[in-house]
Amino acid sequence: MSETNAAIAGLQNPSLNPSLGDEIVGRINRLGAISETPAHLARVFLSKEHRAAADLILAWMREAGMQAHLDAIGNVCGRYEGERPGLPCLMLGSHYDTVRDAGKWDGPLGLITAISCVGDLNKRGRRLPFAIEVTGFADEEGVRFASTLLGSRAVAGTFDESVLGVKDSAGISLRDSLVQFGLDPDHIGAAARARSELLGYVELHIEQGPVLEAQNLPVGVVTAIAGATRLAASLTGMAGHAGTVPMLLRRDALAGAAECIVAIEEFCRTDAGGLVGTVGYIHAMPGATNVIPGQVSFTIDMRAPTDAHRKLAVADIVRSIENITKRRKLVLQLDVTHENRTVPCATWLKSQVSEAIAAEGYRAFELPSGAGHDGMAMIDIADVAMVFVRCRGGISHHPDEHVEPADVDAGARVLLRLIENFRPREAAGPI
Amino acid sequence: MSETNAAIAGLQNPSLNPSLGDEIVGRINRLGAISETPAHLARVFLSKEHRAAADLILAWMREAGMQAHLDAIGNVCGRYEGERPGLPCLMLGSHYDTVRDAGKWDGPLGLITAISCVGDLNKRGRRLPFAIEVTGFADEEGVRFASTLLGSRAVAGTFDESVLGVKDSAGISLRDSLVQFGLDPDHIGAAARARSELLGYVELHIEQGPVLEAQNLPVGVVTAIAGATRLAASLTGMAGHAGTVPMLLRRDALAGAAECIVAIEEFCRTDAGGLVGTVGYIHAMPGATNVIPGQVSFTIDMRAPTDAHRKLAVADIVRSIENITKRRKLVLQLDVTHENRTVPCATWLKSQVSEAIAAEGYRAFELPSGAGHDGMAMIDIADVAMVFVRCRGGISHHPDEHVEPADVDAGARVLLRLIENFRPREAAGPI
Repeated sequence: MSETNAAIAGLQNPSLNPSLGDEIVGRINRLGAISETPAHLARVFLSKEHRAAADLILAWMREAGMQAHLDAIGNVCGRYEGERPGLPCLMLGSHYDTVRDAGKWDGPLGLITAISCVGDLNKRGRRLPFAIEVTGFADEEGVRFASTLLGSRAVAGTFDESVLGVKDSAGISLRDSLVQFGLDPDHIGAAARARSELLGYVELHIEQGPVLEAQNLPVGVVTAIAGATRLAASLTGMAGHAGTVPMLLRRDALAGAAECIVAIEEFCRTDAGGLVGTVGYIHAMPGATNVIPGQVSFTIDMRAPTDAHRKLAVADIVRSIENITKRRKLVLQLDVTHENRTVPCATWLKSQVSEAIAAEGYRAFELPSGAGHDGMAMIDIADVAMVFVRCRGGISHHPDEHVEPADVDAGARVLLRLIENFRPREAAGPI
Repeated sequence: MSETNAAIAGLQNPSLNPSLGDEIVGRINRLGAISETPAHLARVFLSKEHRAAADLILAWMREAGMQAHLDAIGNVCGRYEGERPGLPCLMLGSHYDTVRDAGKWDGPLGLITAISCVGDLNKRGRRLPFAIEVTGFADEEGVRFASTLLGSRAVAGTFDESVLGVKDSAGISLRDSLVQFGLDPDHIGAAARARSELLGYVELHIEQGPVLEAQNLPVGVVTAIAGATRLAASLTGMAGHAGTVPMLLRRDALAGAAECIVAIEEFCRTDAGGLVGTVGYIHAMPGATNVIPGQVSFTIDMRAPTDAHRKLAVADIVRSIENITKRRKLVLQLDVTHENRTVPCATWLKSQVSEAIAAEGYRAFELPSGAGHDGMAMIDIADVAMVFVRCRGGISHHPDEHVEPADVDAGARVLLRLIENFRPREAAGPI
């Protein structure tokens, strides 16, 4: 009998409401229907769909017995008091924005599971010796303003006010978008929380990779969130008529960008240390069939299991791009737009996740997170841990993203057990 | 004394109104100010700026003594009767749409020069033994509906009605755009002209290449318009999270497209026969920094001095793209969206252009056109010739596109002399 089957057969958390998994999947589907376009899920930061989603989540939080409100950056914040009001909290959460053409599980699974766990405690009238807060972070993906973690940075008190002036592709600034959403951009500081209010931050999230599937496990415990460096490259050559400029006289910005993209891929493919590099966005100007592109912008996303490895790789790739553009007489503008250090999960908190997983009958398998998460910002005010849930084929950021209902149940059981057995750091024994 | 200086010194057409060059440059500037955005000239087919330009050109035509109207596809049509009404016409013209971030001379120079020449005849009360028509073609560049020469094809009676269903990037069909512009898409057939109405088609246009500048000549006579093949490629791989999918498991559509673009450039660079290949447009989906692109579309524009050479090159490049996408497990969709045969200029008409150039004191230098022109469609109902005017640095489809006022004068003198000395084919002697 496999570990999964053993769990299904009899080791389930006895306190788990049998309808909890159904409730979570139902809510995932409801939230997944709130999208810019019906055919392709897209719910970007501060859009009207984002606002509709926030209102729905607020309602679910209240239904689960929480006080709930929107904070100044658009995070959805719910609080379930402990045995007496005003106790420090264990914070749970995940994000409710999406990439474009997204799956419906990335973010919402962790947020909705946390709400359902609190709802289950509330139904049983169970109060704990600490409060529980659930936060739906407003902007983890960073699709709209090319700057991620805006929601969790506001909570951590590390929000960079200069981002308020950044404009989206339609020319609307973050400042104006906040006002349209119904928020006051001059009060983002009010979203910041004090370290003393938090006992820890735990996020449940789909793995977004193929490792748990290969291990035949529904859940896993995260060791660290890999850091990432993002760069924005702009190559300027000379536009010209596609029919009249001989090949040898061209300064084609797109041909230059293509050579850079091939070089980035080749560099990462030949790296044995788990380096990944992605060019996800490209824009060629003027963008007409019969015009040689005079300017091209593209992004680079680089990740590796350690900060040192990533930094070395970024330096090598920058040198390679400089050589390509110099040889082609293209003017290069290359900026680091985003850099996140690797965030290790706290040993004491990770141990409690492992205990909960083991208690549910699974092997407590450890794996790193290649994807970024709000814990990368939360680390500044709290110790962080994460529970990963298996997703089909490791597919994420894609409509085919899928989690089996049995794995949703497994995640919910682990999270509920973790909450009910949680001991704050001082009581948890040596780090 | 150079040929240019000789011309300026004393060989100028005595009938030329001395203010004609000033008038043409002034009108180029006025038309160049009608743009979607003030900073970057863009006046695409059936936009409201396109409509404003049409109205201005109609006014100039009427001022030059012509009957003027918009035809069913949006071409601006002016007619100056000959010695008696209803005579067959010598048709002059060029286009009044632009690429995005265009120069102001590509198209308008030929159209405005033709109107000014007619205006000069009219001021002098000069009627010729044939009518003159001036056509401002509505869509030569093909920016909006990815299909060029829509205006001249309608005049030539070769307009493909299926294009009416094609949508622009905003999802608006050509049919709906025509209605918005104030035209009836069901009456495009009415724009077609009969071969018997036309004695020939002559277009003056900037060279858009560096050859006349290298020859130190203000004008030249075109031997042929090079054919072009345009293809639309779509590569489909698998989108995924930029942090969690190992390099060796990726099916990255943009990395695949980049390899194709590098291969196209390399193939054309190593061709000694004047082959040019351009990827001018690219779009990567979903287009986020942290998502591996699952689908990429791009265009390919291939031109060569002969049809045979171009067709061979296209076949080689298609094979190369097929190999790249097969190796990368990408699904390839590759379609020829546009194919124009090479159009030779008519010997009898070319001779008259050469005579006019020589009479103005310049060497009648022959060169091919690497760019496409409305003559490619007009060849189906009339013999075609073209006069090229030197442009600075060979730059076109770019804001730096520039023609010296002295060269504008030279072009106007040549065109006016050609008109006044024009003999129809029957009277022009042996072909």
